[in-house]
Amino acid sequence: MFNQLGVIGCGLMGGSFALALKRAGLVQHVVGYSKSPTTTELAKRLGVIDVAAESALRAVAGSDIVLVAVPVAATEATFNAMRAGIRDGMLVMDVGSTKRDVVDTARRVLRDRNQITHFVPAHPIAGSEQSGVAAADATLYTGRQVILTPLPQTQPELLQKATDVWTAIGAQVLRMTPENHDAAFAAVSHLPHLLAFAAFSAIAGQPAGRDYLSLAGPGFRDFTRIAASDPSVWRDILLANREEVLKQSQRFRLALDALEHTMLAGNGQALEDMIRSASEARAAWQIAGKK
Amino acid sequence: MFNQLGVIGCGLMGGSFALALKRAGLVQHVVGYSKSPTTTELAKRLGVIDVAAESALRAVAGSDIVLVAVPVAATEATFNAMRAGIRDGMLVMDVGSTKRDVVDTARRVLRDRNQITHFVPAHPIAGSEQSGVAAADATLYTGRQVILTPLPQTQPELLQKATDVWTAIGAQVLRMTPENHDAAFAAVSHLPHLLAFAAFSAIAGQPAGRDYLSLAGPGFRDFTRIAASDPSVWRDILLANREEVLKQSQRFRLALDALEHTMLAGNGQALEDMIRSASEARAAWQIAGKK
Repeated sequence: MFNQLGVIGCGLMGGSFALALKRAGLVQHVVGYSKSPTTTELAKRLGVIDVAAESALRAVAGSDIVLVAVPVAATEATFNAMRAGIRDGMLVMDVGSTKRDVVDTARRVLRDRNQITHFVPAHPIAGSEQSGVAAADATLYTGRQVILTPLPQTQPELLQKATDVWTAIGAQVLRMTPENHDAAFAAVSHLPHLLAFAAFSAIAGQPAGRDYLSLAGPGFRDFTRIAASDPSVWRDILLANREEVLKQSQRFRLALDALEHTMLAGNGQALEDMIRSASEARAAWQIAGKK
Repeated sequence: MFNQLGVIGCGLMGGSFALALKRAGLVQHVVGYSKSPTTTELAKRLGVIDVAAESALRAVAGSDIVLVAVPVAATEATFNAMRAGIRDGMLVMDVGSTKRDVVDTARRVLRDRNQITHFVPAHPIAGSEQSGVAAADATLYTGRQVILTPLPQTQPELLQKATDVWTAIGAQVLRMTPENHDAAFAAVSHLPHLLAFAAFSAIAGQPAGRDYLSLAGPGFRDFTRIAASDPSVWRDILLANREEVLKQSQRFRLALDALEHTMLAGNGQALEDMIRSASEARAAWQIAGKK
């Protein structure tokens, strides 16, 4: 399907994409570049990439598919470094958790010779508490959803290629606008992370916090699992999508206010009804995909 | 160790305690009572109890150990129904998730012939998203913590017996005051449940909520798992311990405010530092016990 994959950012996401394409026989050759030469070398030693490139531009040169898998805040510098290498027929994707900012950056940076027409913004809903190329896994995207947020200028045949390659490695492809994407993920991912960071900080930061934490059980473990997420990744996401996250936070605060007012009023029936509504909806909800 | 166990409330908690004592050879005979005769019959058919009693008082008569495993709000009625059956040497425990209210109720109801001296308030930190006697499991308490909150009047030999029986079925016993217990569990259990109820309600209740939920991944699944908890149990807990829960909620809101102000100010370094502090503390935290 492809001759050469260029991976810029050989971490969990980029590395897993390379392994998945290799395993599915979709690519002949993988060239990788990471900011840290140690990472690129490790990716090569682990067989995740075949050749370590010395720059983002070199990873792009000669590739017919390119995955930009860097932290969201590094997107602009990466696009700048690689844009001169974009050639006819080349599919360029990213894997960022926010899409409006990436699309804005692409519009600003990929401005020459229709570079932007090559770009298919992508967000695979996959990840792990682990990170780094050592955790790369050919099945990371199997059974997961991948959101594509094409631009009006995106070449239709490249959008189709993007859909085909994710489908071929077992993912389920959805298309959305960047705006709808960011609103949805503010609700189901970004706000939950913000709340988990706040909740863990609030407990750990009080005088008896250490003692309290020694008593916590499995419910607390699951509720706070996402609070262990990568700080620089989540700094970028929360800043890039802060408008939508703050909107969702307002909705959350209203729901919390309503529960607390009902507790203060001692209205047991109303409180039970509110909890039941959440509890039944959560029990009925099933995670999409198969993992 | 014991001749007869009386279980009042043959659900997950009471049923699992009965199975654990039987399996460890700690009791000859189990008599059970539930408000619903169907439940008591099912418990008997499943071999969780040996005899179905027709009242709480009958389940207590002749028992040398009694476990009250009813919803917190049913504690007063249960104590009233059974108190006439309390005899010399009888150990009486509960399994409630809040302790100040249970202790207050015991002080008010178990007032004759030193009935209160028999009571050892207990809170095993175990449970499951499942409930009911069909989910009862002899290993539910293995490797878990059990908090005992004895009163000044509690007979020391009964407190020792309580410690011994939980230890014998594999639990780790801690002693705390009812006040410290309720403050600690407001932080690590009750507030997290309240936040999960609020978060799920806020998402499910918005116009695009259904679409958003179809996009949610494993992080969201874990974060909201406790939102599926039993509505009447959590109504009782949140009302019984509302003072401490609201105190913890205030701390949480301050932590959330601080994160949001930093997002609004666009201060990436400060935001990353705040997230890192939560993330590192969460990564270092290990759940107590072995499960």
